[in-house]
Amino acid sequence: MNNVQTLKGFRDFLPKDALKRQFVMNTLKDVFASYGFEPLETPTLEYEEILMGKYGDEGDKLMYRFVDQGGRNVAMRYDQTVPLARVIAQYANTLPLPFKRYQIQNVWRAENTQKGRFREFTQCDIDTVGLKAPLVDAEILAIIADSYEALGFQDFTILINDRSIFADLPTKAIIAIDKLKKIGVDNVKKELDALGVDPARLDQLLSTSLPESLQQIVDCAKELGVDRKRLKFEPTLARGLDYYTGIIIEVEIKGYEVGSVGGGGRYDNLVGMFAGRPIPAVGFAFGFDRILEAMEEQNLFPGEMITAQVMVSIFSPELAEKAIEISYKLRAAGIATELYLDETAKMEKQLKYADQKGIPYVLIIGPEEVEKNIVTLKDLNKREQKQVEFDELVSLLQGVTP
Amino acid sequence: MNNVQTLKGFRDFLPKDALKRQFVMNTLKDVFASYGFEPLETPTLEYEEILMGKYGDEGDKLMYRFVDQGGRNVAMRYDQTVPLARVIAQYANTLPLPFKRYQIQNVWRAENTQKGRFREFTQCDIDTVGLKAPLVDAEILAIIADSYEALGFQDFTILINDRSIFADLPTKAIIAIDKLKKIGVDNVKKELDALGVDPARLDQLLSTSLPESLQQIVDCAKELGVDRKRLKFEPTLARGLDYYTGIIIEVEIKGYEVGSVGGGGRYDNLVGMFAGRPIPAVGFAFGFDRILEAMEEQNLFPGEMITAQVMVSIFSPELAEKAIEISYKLRAAGIATELYLDETAKMEKQLKYADQKGIPYVLIIGPEEVEKNIVTLKDLNKREQKQVEFDELVSLLQGVTP
Repeated sequence: MNNVQTLKGFRDFLPKDALKRQFVMNTLKDVFASYGFEPLETPTLEYEEILMGKYGDEGDKLMYRFVDQGGRNVAMRYDQTVPLARVIAQYANTLPLPFKRYQIQNVWRAENTQKGRFREFTQCDIDTVGLKAPLVDAEILAIIADSYEALGFQDFTILINDRSIFADLPTKAIIAIDKLKKIGVDNVKKELDALGVDPARLDQLLSTSLPESLQQIVDCAKELGVDRKRLKFEPTLARGLDYYTGIIIEVEIKGYEVGSVGGGGRYDNLVGMFAGRPIPAVGFAFGFDRILEAMEEQNLFPGEMITAQVMVSIFSPELAEKAIEISYKLRAAGIATELYLDETAKMEKQLKYADQKGIPYVLIIGPEEVEKNIVTLKDLNKREQKQVEFDELVSLLQGVTP
Repeated sequence: MNNVQTLKGFRDFLPKDALKRQFVMNTLKDVFASYGFEPLETPTLEYEEILMGKYGDEGDKLMYRFVDQGGRNVAMRYDQTVPLARVIAQYANTLPLPFKRYQIQNVWRAENTQKGRFREFTQCDIDTVGLKAPLVDAEILAIIADSYEALGFQDFTILINDRSIFADLPTKAIIAIDKLKKIGVDNVKKELDALGVDPARLDQLLSTSLPESLQQIVDCAKELGVDRKRLKFEPTLARGLDYYTGIIIEVEIKGYEVGSVGGGGRYDNLVGMFAGRPIPAVGFAFGFDRILEAMEEQNLFPGEMITAQVMVSIFSPELAEKAIEISYKLRAAGIATELYLDETAKMEKQLKYADQKGIPYVLIIGPEEVEKNIVTLKDLNKREQKQVEFDELVSLLQGVTP
């Protein structure tokens, strides 16, 4: 076997990265739960007819589809909104409305990897289904604000707009306006002109003041504790997708130049697609990969991402029993403790292993320590060590966050 | 669209079930981390050649495979051991050994659903790769014991055996012996006889005492805090799979009759398949679905699985602002708080919603409450209510586990 590799666009997440992913997921889940949002999981495979035609021609092309062993046409999850719409229709009688759910699962798209895109990536969505009111949209804004704050971002902006601001414009003009940041005022005007839209419409948009619909949402958001400075009315924000029907949302992080780290809005004509009746909905998708990248850049992960607070080394086979016993006692005291498992390994090798795994402390229990009934605690970061008694050790380590 | 349904063998997990799944995952992850085990994630799709031929004819048949948009033959993850072997080979120079990893991801098998099997299910594996010593195997036993205890199981048994006990027997005879619990002594003896194996070999097996190899592991496990009563030497335990090379492990829960809730053992000839050299390994797979079923049967989930501790109702549109403000304050005090979002809904409807979501408490802030600067706290389980001040409310609710 020469070909020991992953498919292009697919990734292994080795422990350090997997831990970071878990940290972000758990932080977000805690915020979602604090608003009463509940998790939903849908299957990886759906009947092809459930997904086909829901994402435009591009989506049909990029969707992973195949015929299964039973001759069924199946497709892999492409996003989490169409499955949500199916769930809403399928369990209409049992789901309490509004249905406030979060969903953090992978999706698959056969994207062009040369553009730096992945073919398997994690989506992280929150949506409130079944209710249309300023308070509902405001709650999404509050969760967004709390989430990026909980992740440690200091300086982020929640851009908002209302789709109705473009009511008089053709889709192509909206797409042109949406490119404002990339191509600048003059170029957008040229494109509008070419589309037969008066270029002055852009100036007019840019000088628009907050519409009443958004004012109500902003007021509710303030009551929900959102710092008004976080919210910025951006009258040219369009978010390409034309399924939005009300508020449009995008989040930008200062200093992170790749682009927005999440987006969403109100979309009242989509979730009812299988139920056969309009069902209002508002939601937001956290850009999982970009959030990880931005956190990395801004150094927001709490220290080394590790599982164990301390590693107990084994001084010699004769003293292994003592080390094992202490590892057990530490664990019983609530300290995440890795026991080095090879009693024949040299101490140098053991220390290197702890260092590679990023474990901050190593315990050494040699003959002297056993005799004095103490342990030697080595701080690998500060490169210093001291001898302590067991009780002191526990309280010292309890402060170390894994 | 008439066909709004999931594929046979595939499941939606609505909030109540998804929360239970998260509870089990988080409980297990905490135990794994307490031993320094770290997470690994591998892609859903692999090159077909990585997976084909690794699971026998049955595996090749049940594996979901297809040709992707780029003409590549790809296959969906079938288990987590072959991907682990690939990772070990691919990152040989960067992974510190022993590599102690846990992996909790879904796998796909086109199983016969009439046997009650699922085609997408979650596997939950722990493995220590790169080291062969009694202490390594003992640590797996300790994690197993801690895990089922952490999930709340009182009465479970870790059955152990050593594969070498069958060294003189042909595979078919081992398979016959493995059926002992299902078909009884007499029938196993008949099968052995038919295979040309002396039926007395079964009696001999049944009277075998703990071999030295297992005694060493058991001694280490005791030092690691494992209650000796948890461990039961079962000389007929074979676990069908013939890739085990040392200890074999299976866990049974008293009162749960469906079968074992996890299994594993030492397998020193498998993980090196891509690296091209033998790499020792020992591991255990937690039976995720069965654990959930057993916990359900034995009522081990901590109360109602919920996200919010309390729901703040909205008495009237005029008093909405007051309710919103209190929801914010409660959240700021660390209380997971669901705000009812429809200010026009009748109180009865709001209470029903809280009840459906299993939220134990509802706050009511009506004109009387506003005037007295108090709130009414309704306990939906006890069906009683009382008026409290905000500070008292926070301390009351801090005791409620979401």
